[in-house]
Formats: sequence, structure tokens, C-alpha cells
Amino acid sequence: MTRYALGVEYDGSDFLGWQRLSKPGESDAGSLQAALEEALSFVAAASIQSVCAGRTDAGVHAACQVVHFDSPADRDPRGWMLGTTSRLPDAICVRWCVPVADDFHARFSARARRYRYRLLNRPVRPALQRQYLAWERRRLDAEAMHRAAQALLGEHDFSAFRTVHCQAPHARRDLQRLDVHRDGEEVIFEVQANAFLHHMVRNLVGTLLEVGRGDRPEAWVGEVLHGRDRTLAGATAPAGGLVFVGPLYPPQWGLPSEATLSDPEEAAPAP
Amino acid sequence: MTRYALGVEYDGSDFLGWQRLSKPGESDAGSLQAALEEALSFVAAASIQSVCAGRTDAGVHAACQVVHFDSPADRDPRGWMLGTTSRLPDAICVRWCVPVADDFHARFSARARRYRYRLLNRPVRPALQRQYLAWERRRLDAEAMHRAAQALLGEHDFSAFRTVHCQAPHARRDLQRLDVHRDGEEVIFEVQANAFLHHMVRNLVGTLLEVGRGDRPEAWVGEVLHGRDRTLAGATAPAGGLVFVGPLYPPQWGLPSEATLSDPEEAAPAP
Repeated sequence: MTRYALGVEYDGSDFLGWQRLSKPGESDAGSLQAALEEALSFVAAASIQSVCAGRTDAGVHAACQVVHFDSPADRDPRGWMLGTTSRLPDAICVRWCVPVADDFHARFSARARRYRYRLLNRPVRPALQRQYLAWERRRLDAEAMHRAAQALLGEHDFSAFRTVHCQAPHARRDLQRLDVHRDGEEVIFEVQANAFLHHMVRNLVGTLLEVGRGDRPEAWVGEVLHGRDRTLAGATAPAGGLVFVGPLYPPQWGLPSEATLSDPEEAAPAP
Repeated sequence: MTRYALGVEYDGSDFLGWQRLSKPGESDAGSLQAALEEALSFVAAASIQSVCAGRTDAGVHAACQVVHFDSPADRDPRGWMLGTTSRLPDAICVRWCVPVADDFHARFSARARRYRYRLLNRPVRPALQRQYLAWERRRLDAEAMHRAAQALLGEHDFSAFRTVHCQAPHARRDLQRLDVHRDGEEVIFEVQANAFLHHMVRNLVGTLLEVGRGDRPEAWVGEVLHGRDRTLAGATAPAGGLVFVGPLYPPQWGLPSEATLSDPEEAAPAP
């Protein structure tokens, strides 16, 4: 039996989210996990189950979701990558496959996760790239949002930014980066934490947008954090602007550089 | 009667191309021109016909196609922009609208056109951004393609890069820029000319790909140009990687900066 790690890219527009909604082997219309496991099972000629680094919601994309699975099938990594991709819908592909140690775990071995949120800021909705962009017609102050966001960095109780459906046992997370910048008509949010709560990125963005529109002062963001009350924060930003850039692991696991911590010291332990 | 210029953005994936395939007022499944004219006619409450800067083929996108039309309707530019966009399919929007002099002509007043071609160069097909990327699995030498492309600059007979269906009266065009560079897994072609022949950008890209793959020497590209024989050039590259960035006009017309020549001296007269 060999354990493999996969880098998986997907356009989440037409999926109900990562998580399988049925039992393995049953038909499942619309989860990314079921689509991937069906393709892997075809290549392995046996039922395969997978574990991912971070479940994404309906409509959220991933540049490099990481997944692990076990199989006794005699396939080389390139064979898994190409064979699985050939059985996947156009909106999903396997970017790489590497054999890993038996104690690697896509979720528990990850030390950080990165997300990117892209928003088009102009009077007219997007046509090009509309699958990957949220849209705000009112002029946003990206620098004010960036300054306000810095009050959120560090280890805090992020209850204010967690949906009521969140199943995590506690809300303490270490937010390592929250950069906001403007690139022409786009406003881009780059977020990294040891781990995230359900809807946390979209609630952070929705809250910062209140500052960006000028409806709230910059200091309000820190007040929302310390209030720990979801009802005081901004609205949840739309799913389509969000990409799970991917998780980061310590170098010992031997994953490709895009999934490996460049400075292991910077990352806190998993929650 | 007022003449207006529009900046139009579209995702051409699901369209048969720019050009209307039926008479105005008749139903037309699939042309961008018909979709735009139908929306403009609704806003004007009268039939409107339009002229574009450059017709695009099926599957080709545009960041800023420029269109002109005439109407006596009493609407301000923002009203045309927002009203028309609200009647357009999700894949099309009007980015701006400006009133222009009566002798402005979207096609004949343009002094240059810009295109961008994006190609993903890795073993596995794209999932994210697949609507906007061509794909080549063999490793490409972007620097060799860039060097080879420089032999094409200037005014030449581009018959070697024109489809047999091209209706232009002659094949002389002034190619002002053909830059090829790599950005991670992407290879990007930036092309500018006074005007283009039918399929010219996709045939230029397809020919340069022969050099990029190492199947032809760099000097071959100049030989293809001087041979003036379409059958000697490379295959037509797929439509989905191509974006019509937009046309450029002399400053006198008062269009937004993205559609205005920064240095009018650099652009040759229209063919």
C-alpha cells in the first residue's frame, strides 16, 4: 500500500463544494470529492477514498488543493496524474502526484493555508473572468482596507468571522497575512493563516469592504474581532471571487515547492 | 442624431463570433453583434446598427472591442452603458460610452490593434482559466520564439499567415510588436499591428510554436513570411487563448486612454 499526495486544481463554479454528499460508490451529482474519487477509482480499478487539506464551499475555486489517498495499485506518479485527469470533468485536473510517507496527512500535516480573493471594482459587472471575480460598483479604498486588516493579524478568537454552521471545536486561529492591494480595476486580497473557520475568508473580505466603501472607520475592524459576535461583522462576500491557493507543509514531506513552507519557523502548529 | 463609441468586453466562448449572421431585427442565435444591437435597440426604443473596430472569430474574447452607432435617443453616456449592459448576456458588457464626432468610424479611424494570446505550458490541461488559455504539453522555449518573431516586424505581405477565407483586398500589414514571454507555466504573446488579416494572430502563434517546440530553427519564421504561402506556415492556434485587447485611435477623438495612441507617430495609416 502506498500513500500519494495530489495537487488538484479546479473551477468550483458548477460544483456544490468539495465534500462528498453521498457514500463512496453511490452516485453524487456535484461534489468535487466524488468526481475526484470516481476518477482515481477508475485508474486504480478499486474504490479509493481521499482526504483534502481544506474543504471548499460551493462556487469556490482551487489553484492547488492537496489531497492524499492510499492504493496498492502499481502506477507511477505520472500515470496517476495523467490517467486521473483524463477521467475528470474539464473543470478539474491533477497538477502533480508524489508518493509520500505513510504518516503524511493532507489536513493534519498542513501548517498554513493561503487564499486569494479577487474583486472587480468598476461601475459595470465583469464579462471576461466573471467566473473568478466578485464585483463592487462603489469605489473602494484598498489602502484603507489594507491598514484596517493589519489589526486582525496574529492569534485570536475569530468567532466574529465564522458562520453558525462552523463545526470547528474552537475559533482560535493564527492569521499570518492579510494584504489588500489594487491592480487597475481589480482589488485583490491575499490571506494566510494556520487554518480557517467556515466562511472566514469571505467574512473577513465582507467586513473589510465596509471600510473600503467608507461606511465604517478603519478601527471598526478590530472592534468586530474583539466583539466575537458574527452579527456585528460585514456580509459574507460571494464565493466566486475566492480561490484556495493551497496549503503549505514542512519541507520534510517532499512536496513540490508551491506546497512547501519556505520558512518553517513562520508557521504555527495546526489547531 | 448623435454618434457614440462604446468599449465592449466579452467572453467569446459561447458565441459564433462578432459578426451578425442574420438581418437586423431577425433572430440571431450566437453572434455578439446581434446580442449588442438587440440590447442597444431596446435602450433606444428603435433599431440600432453598429460597426466594430475588428471582427473576432468564434471563441475569441475581447477586453475592449470598440463599436460605434448613431441614435437620436436622448440618453446620457452612463445611461447607454448601464442600460445596455443590463440587457446583455452575462458574457458581454459595455465598459464605457462616449459621444464622438460624426466622422469617427470604429474601423477606419483605428490606427492600431492589439491582441494577447495566452497558453498554458505544462503536462496537464488547465482547469482554472481554461476559458482563456490554450494548452501545450511540450516544453516551449519562449525566448527562442521571441527572437524568431522579431523577423516579422515592419511592413510586409503577410499572405503566409492569412486564411484562404480572408476577404481583405491585399495582405500588406505593419506589424509593430510581437513579444513572447514566459510567466510561470504560462507563455504570453503580445501582438500589435496597424490591422490584421483573418486568422493572422492565430497563424503567427501556431508558426512560432514550431520554433518553441524545437521542431524548426528560428530563421524558419522569416522564410515562411517571405514564401507568402499559407501551406508552409504552422497550424492555426486555438481560438480560446486569444483576446482582442482593443484598437487604438488618435487622441483627437477623445476616447478613454486604453483606446488612445500614446504616441501617434508610431502608428502607420490604416490599410
